Amino acid sequence: MEGSDCQQYKKSLETNISIVKKTGLRVLDLRDGYAKLQLPIEPNLNHIGSIYAGSLFTIGEIAGGAIFYACFDRSEFYPIVKRVSIQFLRMASTDVTVEVEMPEKEAERISKLARTQGKCDFELSIEIKDTRDQTCSIVNGVWQIRRIKNSQSL
Amino acid sequence: MEGSDCQQYKKSLETNISIVKKTGLRVLDLRDGYAKLQLPIEPNLNHIGSIYAGSLFTIGEIAGGAIFYACFDRSEFYPIVKRVSIQFLRMASTDVTVEVEMPEKEAERISKLARTQGKCDFELSIEIKDTRDQTCSIVNGVWQIRRIKNSQSL
Repeated sequence: MEGSDCQQYKKSLETNISIVKKTGLRVLDLRDGYAKLQLPIEPNLNHIGSIYAGSLFTIGEIAGGAIFYACFDRSEFYPIVKRVSIQFLRMASTDVTVEVEMPEKEAERISKLARTQGKCDFELSIEIKDTRDQTCSIVNGVWQIRRIKNSQSL
Repeated sequence: MEGSDCQQYKKSLETNISIVKKTGLRVLDLRDGYAKLQLPIEPNLNHIGSIYAGSLFTIGEIAGGAIFYACFDRSEFYPIVKRVSIQFLRMASTDVTVEVEMPEKEAERISKLARTQGKCDFELSIEIKDTRDQTCSIVNGVWQIRRIKNSQSL
């Protein structure tokens, strides 16, 4: 991934969706096959001093978008989210981070299928961790890449 | 539910959590055993002109809080959310609403168990509908009521 593309993708993930921008979500790292995201406890506090469940959902869901930028050709494909489940294991009472990665071979397999079939699902299992490295929530989701109909590969 | 309590609970659900308030979520109706919530498409638009997945999650999750107010004695219990899954069936390209209800006997059963065991789970299955009455997303979640340790019933 080119440095200028990387900066543009980070900014897109952080700011393209207005209500996501309001959470203060930041993309700390984004490179081929890997992304790390952070969510600050402010302004996501709930009424009991921890991060609101919906904001925890958001960092997990946006991680799926980040791995799209990190693994797939956006001139060929676009991503959608199909389903997400989240388990709340302990209160998130600090900023939280998630790390997601996908091996190059897996990304190639998914791209190849999406080229021939028009679309292909991918799954992620994501741990949301606090600053003490404790897992607060686990997100399991299914996203899908879809071939852009007028992409150059067709 | 007294009218003044109802207004207070509606306001709590809409405004107690700052990031939820920013979604513009409104409690349209709240009465014994029933709640109806609405989420406006603005300011929840994503980059493709529909409601962002995280905001759809939020209306489902807050519905669990609403049914708590609608069914349980908040001087005895408080609610937590344990896990939530959401399926995205079609884009939500208008404002959306959810309706949740719980029969009185079910609420009594759960309250009774929580009084003796200290806590009791409850499950909800919630359809998020657009203004054409089409189901955009389905939320399935498990919440829990917990006995307040110094509540008067102890």
